[in-house]
Amino acid sequence: MPLQDHHQIISVDDHLVEHPRVWQDRLPAKHRAAGPRIVELDGKHLWSYEGVTYPTIGLNAVAGKPMEEWGMDPGRYEDMIPGCYDPVARLADMDLDGIQAALCFPSFPGFAAGTFQRARDKELASLCVKAWNDFYIDEWCATAPDRYIPLALLPIWDIDACVAEAERTAAMGARTVSFPDSPVPLGLPSFHSDHWDRLWQVCSEHRMPVSMHFGSGGYVPGFSYSSMATYSTLEAVSGERPMPDSPFAVAITLFATNLMWSTVDLLFSGKLQQFPDLQFSLAEGGIGWVPYILERSDYVWERHRYYQSIDFDARPSDLFRQHFYGCFIDDEHGLANRHVIGVDRITIESDYPHSDSTWPNTRKRAAEVLAEVPDDECSLIVEENARRMLNFPRTAA
Amino acid sequence: MPLQDHHQIISVDDHLVEHPRVWQDRLPAKHRAAGPRIVELDGKHLWSYEGVTYPTIGLNAVAGKPMEEWGMDPGRYEDMIPGCYDPVARLADMDLDGIQAALCFPSFPGFAAGTFQRARDKELASLCVKAWNDFYIDEWCATAPDRYIPLALLPIWDIDACVAEAERTAAMGARTVSFPDSPVPLGLPSFHSDHWDRLWQVCSEHRMPVSMHFGSGGYVPGFSYSSMATYSTLEAVSGERPMPDSPFAVAITLFATNLMWSTVDLLFSGKLQQFPDLQFSLAEGGIGWVPYILERSDYVWERHRYYQSIDFDARPSDLFRQHFYGCFIDDEHGLANRHVIGVDRITIESDYPHSDSTWPNTRKRAAEVLAEVPDDECSLIVEENARRMLNFPRTAA
Repeated sequence: MPLQDHHQIISVDDHLVEHPRVWQDRLPAKHRAAGPRIVELDGKHLWSYEGVTYPTIGLNAVAGKPMEEWGMDPGRYEDMIPGCYDPVARLADMDLDGIQAALCFPSFPGFAAGTFQRARDKELASLCVKAWNDFYIDEWCATAPDRYIPLALLPIWDIDACVAEAERTAAMGARTVSFPDSPVPLGLPSFHSDHWDRLWQVCSEHRMPVSMHFGSGGYVPGFSYSSMATYSTLEAVSGERPMPDSPFAVAITLFATNLMWSTVDLLFSGKLQQFPDLQFSLAEGGIGWVPYILERSDYVWERHRYYQSIDFDARPSDLFRQHFYGCFIDDEHGLANRHVIGVDRITIESDYPHSDSTWPNTRKRAAEVLAEVPDDECSLIVEENARRMLNFPRTAA
Repeated sequence: MPLQDHHQIISVDDHLVEHPRVWQDRLPAKHRAAGPRIVELDGKHLWSYEGVTYPTIGLNAVAGKPMEEWGMDPGRYEDMIPGCYDPVARLADMDLDGIQAALCFPSFPGFAAGTFQRARDKELASLCVKAWNDFYIDEWCATAPDRYIPLALLPIWDIDACVAEAERTAAMGARTVSFPDSPVPLGLPSFHSDHWDRLWQVCSEHRMPVSMHFGSGGYVPGFSYSSMATYSTLEAVSGERPMPDSPFAVAITLFATNLMWSTVDLLFSGKLQQFPDLQFSLAEGGIGWVPYILERSDYVWERHRYYQSIDFDARPSDLFRQHFYGCFIDDEHGLANRHVIGVDRITIESDYPHSDSTWPNTRKRAAEVLAEVPDDECSLIVEENARRMLNFPRTAA
């Protein structure tokens, strides 16, 4: 039988909108003016940080709005449903959606703290990362520890601080760290360098998978964007760079190709063999592309391993099934091909309150797409794989 | 029954290596010194063009070499098997491979004339494009008109000259034009502009599909390449820019993601509705990714068409099955999902003499991967779709 009442759905990729006092409540007095705070401009709520204003993008909080009213314009907190920024209201929205537990990524900081990585004052930026982690783990997740899954941001520009923050948040209960899907466009060392080894070591020791959310590297896929330059969605929306020629639908469609790139880069990096316990979660990556990429990776590996510096003995598709978890929102092709991907490597997400979300019909839609899936596989896909990956077991009722 | 003797395999993506006199035999005297010619350096054959030397990349002519001997180093003509540069010898190699007819892309010019697009002297560059077309159509294809399929390069930097060359070569018998998979990284207008409309019109009128070969836009996919800058394989090999951090296997694996991007860009461009007879061939793109991209495109289209400038009525997956042909070398996942892609939209390629090629086992491997495919579908995939797309019917025996 497919999805049943006893299956608890664990969403490995949801989002929260930070309430206005996340940083103002936590930053030392001398940093509060420059630190993130909400200002009003033309009747809209905007974040002010280091003197720059950033919109609260409407498209990042469309839950509850009919599609006909979606748009990129900034809004006000009152324009969002409270579950976007209130963890208690969110629980009611999760109940409505049939979701037991959720891992929430940030909004203003960027999925992997890119906003702080681009900031001028790195002392303030580090404090902002810690403040978000303290807010999310000790305030948001503490509201319902069996329903919110702790995630930590990292001060990605400083490897010593990264390692320290990963250790600090692991002690606080963090179950995963958010890492850019593409460090190189951010000006950081690639997956092929030794730069990240100490971080991978900490993640391995604490069994914290590395969550890479598409777009967290700040890279917008598509050929029609200005000069192929790296720019963030925020920049696109705030008009700091010229809008691309393509409708944004092109980038939305293609964002998961970022994670194809990240995956192949890691499969050929040697790091998975060096860190046998290291795990990666491909957040919002979809799964329908996995069979193609694995077949292609193996084909290239078989033919080119004689002269390139790639591991002669480690087949990429084997490495994938040992080190990666994919997730889906609504991916019929991926589910039909779940055995090629690995049934124990597939998880589900709701993406609330973003525009890809199926809320409030996530459970209903999951039941439809899982209608032909046997009970034991259904258990793995909606619940057990995520609980295993995140070390987040069921608690006694 | 699967592949049988009466099925003639049409390869829609093979490659030729230009012999040393292609341009020297055709350019006016005043341009010969600057025009492409072969020089010897350290015992290797290199192309000299506008005073710059370019290697004949070994990896582009590996047919007949054991994988253990592959590499990126330049070579000599004598290091290649003659079928690389001799159309009569090639026929014997095609017979050995079980291939009836082949469409050949260029080597030195780049798949879509990128070498000439980057050249300083555009008068010379235009003459070089014409010389290649005259060579390929009147010299190479004329050797066996029922076995070589005429393709034309275009002076892509000049839309008037593009249109004129498309008209000129159509009259010579060209069945398709080669166009960059990504004009924007080349500094050219995107698929969303009206710049290319006259070319699309000519292609539509002459029923010449637009062949986009991966990498023809000069864009190497992958995050680990220096500054995400556009650079060509030639540049990477010739050392004009720093070598990337990733092994080249990453880019080889990911090259088809270029064509995912091109496809989605075109699906959301409106051009397919504007030019109902326009067809695109995704050369060396593989097909295993198509089901995922179509499902994802439809998902985004359904949710975002209310506020973005994308066609409200044209479902992307329908447009794909009306305007695109995919091809495969060895793509089990794609073939298993051929009905989702469209059985009348799949073609096959040999990629001789490149490193992806299955030569001399293309027919043998095709028989294996098509073992479970019904006879009528097999006919479409190996022969009829390509003949229809390229207006290249069987001739009487």
